[in-house]
Amino acid sequence: MRRVAVAGVGFIPIKEYWDRSLQDLFAEAALKAVRDAGGTEVDSVYVSNMSGSLMQDQINLGALVADSLGKPGLPAVRVEAGTASGGVAFHEAVKAVASGYSDCVLVGGVEKMSDVLPEVATTAMVMSEEQEYTAYTGVTQAGLSAMLHRLYLDLYAEPAEVGMMAVKGHDHSVGCKHAQYPFRMSIDRAMDSPMEADPIHTMECSGVGDGAAALVLVPAGESGVEVAGSAVATDCCSLTTRNDPLVFDAVKRAAEKAYRMAKVKPGDVDLAEVHDDFTIDGVLSLEALGLAKQGEAAKLVAGNATDKDGKIPVNTFGGLKARGHPLGATGLYQVAEVTLQLRGAAGDHQVPGAEVGLAQSMGGVASVSAVNILRRFGK
Amino acid sequence: MRRVAVAGVGFIPIKEYWDRSLQDLFAEAALKAVRDAGGTEVDSVYVSNMSGSLMQDQINLGALVADSLGKPGLPAVRVEAGTASGGVAFHEAVKAVASGYSDCVLVGGVEKMSDVLPEVATTAMVMSEEQEYTAYTGVTQAGLSAMLHRLYLDLYAEPAEVGMMAVKGHDHSVGCKHAQYPFRMSIDRAMDSPMEADPIHTMECSGVGDGAAALVLVPAGESGVEVAGSAVATDCCSLTTRNDPLVFDAVKRAAEKAYRMAKVKPGDVDLAEVHDDFTIDGVLSLEALGLAKQGEAAKLVAGNATDKDGKIPVNTFGGLKARGHPLGATGLYQVAEVTLQLRGAAGDHQVPGAEVGLAQSMGGVASVSAVNILRRFGK
Repeated sequence: MRRVAVAGVGFIPIKEYWDRSLQDLFAEAALKAVRDAGGTEVDSVYVSNMSGSLMQDQINLGALVADSLGKPGLPAVRVEAGTASGGVAFHEAVKAVASGYSDCVLVGGVEKMSDVLPEVATTAMVMSEEQEYTAYTGVTQAGLSAMLHRLYLDLYAEPAEVGMMAVKGHDHSVGCKHAQYPFRMSIDRAMDSPMEADPIHTMECSGVGDGAAALVLVPAGESGVEVAGSAVATDCCSLTTRNDPLVFDAVKRAAEKAYRMAKVKPGDVDLAEVHDDFTIDGVLSLEALGLAKQGEAAKLVAGNATDKDGKIPVNTFGGLKARGHPLGATGLYQVAEVTLQLRGAAGDHQVPGAEVGLAQSMGGVASVSAVNILRRFGK
Repeated sequence: MRRVAVAGVGFIPIKEYWDRSLQDLFAEAALKAVRDAGGTEVDSVYVSNMSGSLMQDQINLGALVADSLGKPGLPAVRVEAGTASGGVAFHEAVKAVASGYSDCVLVGGVEKMSDVLPEVATTAMVMSEEQEYTAYTGVTQAGLSAMLHRLYLDLYAEPAEVGMMAVKGHDHSVGCKHAQYPFRMSIDRAMDSPMEADPIHTMECSGVGDGAAALVLVPAGESGVEVAGSAVATDCCSLTTRNDPLVFDAVKRAAEKAYRMAKVKPGDVDLAEVHDDFTIDGVLSLEALGLAKQGEAAKLVAGNATDKDGKIPVNTFGGLKARGHPLGATGLYQVAEVTLQLRGAAGDHQVPGAEVGLAQSMGGVASVSAVNILRRFGK
């Protein structure tokens, strides 16, 4: 199996793009990534997109984005795994290079949520749940996470401790040019905001935005940023059939496999980008990743361990809450951010001396997860 | 790169399943494939599905099908490339084994079209075209293929010659237990049927149905059916920007690459399953595959060259027209059928002594195509 390296990254600011199409946003991020890789010749394309079918009546995005790049002809495929689409597409792109099928892969994610009313975004989210058993009840994705949040508060933490996941994300986002909400937010503002789904406050939820992020993958050379571990795993779709709903088993399995591949332990990770679509999901992700013990992640975040200069910096550009969460593109923003950190090119967001970084995505309420571990190597 | 073999195939009859879910249909085909592979332990799952988002409000199918197999935890991902989804998912699954990331992959496709009104299926099809330039006009997929059909009739063939693509498919389907329409159809019936999109008659169009097909892929051993070549390619999405709209460039590129990998020429292929969603698409696919010269495929089909005992048997179980065309599952029915042929297990449909078989899918009006070439090897 060939070792795989990240040769280029590109992304656009997450905001509302009223006058541009999915392909157009994808092309901008992709061309930036190709330029960053030194203008290399891409030989295949992966595109992650979650809800183009619902929001733009658009499928078959592989062909469309290859065409938009001025490269009709290239092999191109769309990967979808709910909000984990970006992380999973990255995993598939890694395999394409590792297998020898491709020598230079462009993997990009794109999503445009501004085109639809907010309730359509809510519908889009819950389409990741099983229609026959869960979604038909009318529950929202926030509603499902709220049940976990309530249980977590009963057992382990105070509301404001969980809420600090959002506050810390916003702290990190200040000055981030591609972040949708790059400003500080106090814990009082979060706790005083209306309930989205009790006990989840609105200001504990990621927002709605448009974005695109892309990476170029090649066989590893002498030095750079390599993909040290990459894994995907799933879990029972219904929360009620899980052994312990507060354990994100998909995240845990993917992380254990990725750690094993990378030959690292959670303690070796210098920074992590985790899936905080709601504060509780970020908290439970940290625990499933082994970066905190069960029941302790909220307190860890409320302290200073996950700060930029803490023991394990988390969501160094703001996370889903502050950087933004354009669904199918999110996982690739995460991997791009980790790459910048390992290159030492993260500017004000830099974690000094970062060598190993982790990006974790999830789809549904962690019914699927991708964990990608990157490492700086060579001189 | 590891050589990859097909260890198991499974599928269900294509018909209307009113009381069963996507996951349920997938599981039946998948468990058949696993049983056919000797009850092997699958370590990852690929699922192809085109329109679950529109037809069942269901995405994130990777996690859902892993769960439905009683195997939550497995890595699982959905691949989508319009009606080429099945062929493209197979290509991705091949890479997973070739790369060493997986030792036993289950790749299955599923689609349920009966749940929706026929006009929704029409909408689903045209979502593969670019919304901003093509689909917004209100044109249907049949309407786009009709333009090619008209041009082909102007230049190369008589309507009844193109129509024979459907007639021959129906001839081959007789006795096929998984075919949706296993009966003979005369050319008069096709030519007398109403226009779907002039000059395409209704009886030149594939129908609407539900189905699921699956394969198990493993590293190649001593003998069996191997994946000799596997490739995906794209083309300009708009017909108006192509050099010659009667040349399916995506099919041509994918075929050339797959032939090169397999070290075979078109003349070495013993049978082909081609994408005849409309008769003209089957005809143009044969030409792009190099199985007929430009402008000659319709006459070839109207003769006896593509019959079961002809020079190059085509659509030996009926093709999309007679076996059926459940969108995202179709490409995997094709590969499963080719596998049966190469095993000598095709019963009344057997092409004697078949050693090399080809399956070709396309999405949109050939804006994307997958070509997979299988070969019998060993004793």
